[in-house]
Amino acid sequence: MQNIRCVVEYDGTDFRGFQRQPVATTIQGTLEDAIRELTREHTRVVSAGRTDAGVHALGQVISFHTSSSIPVERWPDALNSRLPRTIVVKKADIVPPEFHAGRSATAKLYRYTIRNARHPSVFDGRYALFVRQPLDVEAMARAAALLAGRRDFAAFRAAGSTPVRTTVRHLFALDVTRREEHIYIDARGDGFLYHMVRNIVGTLLLVGEQKRPIEWVGEVLDAGRRELAGPTAPAHGLCLVRVEYG
Amino acid sequence: MQNIRCVVEYDGTDFRGFQRQPVATTIQGTLEDAIRELTREHTRVVSAGRTDAGVHALGQVISFHTSSSIPVERWPDALNSRLPRTIVVKKADIVPPEFHAGRSATAKLYRYTIRNARHPSVFDGRYALFVRQPLDVEAMARAAALLAGRRDFAAFRAAGSTPVRTTVRHLFALDVTRREEHIYIDARGDGFLYHMVRNIVGTLLLVGEQKRPIEWVGEVLDAGRRELAGPTAPAHGLCLVRVEYG
Repeated sequence: MQNIRCVVEYDGTDFRGFQRQPVATTIQGTLEDAIRELTREHTRVVSAGRTDAGVHALGQVISFHTSSSIPVERWPDALNSRLPRTIVVKKADIVPPEFHAGRSATAKLYRYTIRNARHPSVFDGRYALFVRQPLDVEAMARAAALLAGRRDFAAFRAAGSTPVRTTVRHLFALDVTRREEHIYIDARGDGFLYHMVRNIVGTLLLVGEQKRPIEWVGEVLDAGRRELAGPTAPAHGLCLVRVEYG
Repeated sequence: MQNIRCVVEYDGTDFRGFQRQPVATTIQGTLEDAIRELTREHTRVVSAGRTDAGVHALGQVISFHTSSSIPVERWPDALNSRLPRTIVVKKADIVPPEFHAGRSATAKLYRYTIRNARHPSVFDGRYALFVRQPLDVEAMARAAALLAGRRDFAAFRAAGSTPVRTTVRHLFALDVTRREEHIYIDARGDGFLYHMVRNIVGTLLLVGEQKRPIEWVGEVLDAGRRELAGPTAPAHGLCLVRVEYG
């Protein structure tokens, strides 16, 4: 048996998220089906991040065990020829048996993209949230700085999501930058609660729209109550850019 | 009557090109329908470049006459609310009665995008030609330099296209650059023959693939025979970036 790790890119628009579901088309299900078609094995694929419906990935990482003798450098092409055009395996390598794409990850980088311009664009409509009102990026960046660090992010965790051991996560960096008509919110951390990035983005947007002062974001964090934070930003602006190990 | 000029962006994937056709969905037809719905007038829209089926535009320019009293700054929103998401009017202004988006143009910039990488990307598949074989960009750039200037481009004009007065055009610049996994071929000129950019790209690709030497491109130009040049590159890599006036 070999443990294979792959870097995977996908356009999440037409998938019901990563995690396998009985009926809906998901990334995990589509990958597992492609592997089964290739190897005749029923394999379980695990991932670094279980992205929601509509969320994209540039550098999702998956791993799975197989007894197939296909040389590892052949895996990307072999899988890509069996995958829809909306999923591409970019790289594959052999990892130690105990490696787990999710549990072994030490950091993940998510990017949320906002198109802040007078008019939407036909080219980024699937990958960026369109906001017409000019946003105060400086204020958003200063508010974001209040959230970086090892914190209890209970306030930014989806209401009603399944209980977790702890809501403390280490957000190594939360950067807000503008490049021409796009605003990027880059969140790099050791782990993320359910909807955490999208809830942070929805909260920072209220600051960017000058509906809330910068300090309010710190108060929301401290209070730890989801209902005080901003709304969940739409899924299509979010992308899992990179996963780091060791 | 006012003469209105608009800058228009579109994803050409689902259109049968710019020019109105009796049955097929085209950019011109869709724009004229939106204007008619808005003004109740039957207007003829003219454009700077009649892009082919599948070709995109970041900065196509159109103009049309109207007796509507809609203030010019309202035109973009008014039209966008009546257009599919694949066409966006980005700007509108009033121009002198004799202005014609096509005849008044002094230069157009087209960009052809190639993804030159080990694997395709799910994000640029609609907008870039995927070429796996590593391309010699240096050779392509040197071959491109042989084509810049005021030349007879008969060799790069679609075989069997309708006769034109002259096949001489002024190609102000033809630049080939690589940025990470993308190669851009930027053609700026005073006018382009039918399929000219795509035929130039198809020719430069043969040089990039080292199937032809650099000098061969100059020989093709001099011979002026379409059958000696490379194949027509696919439409989806091409985008009309900008139109210049006066």
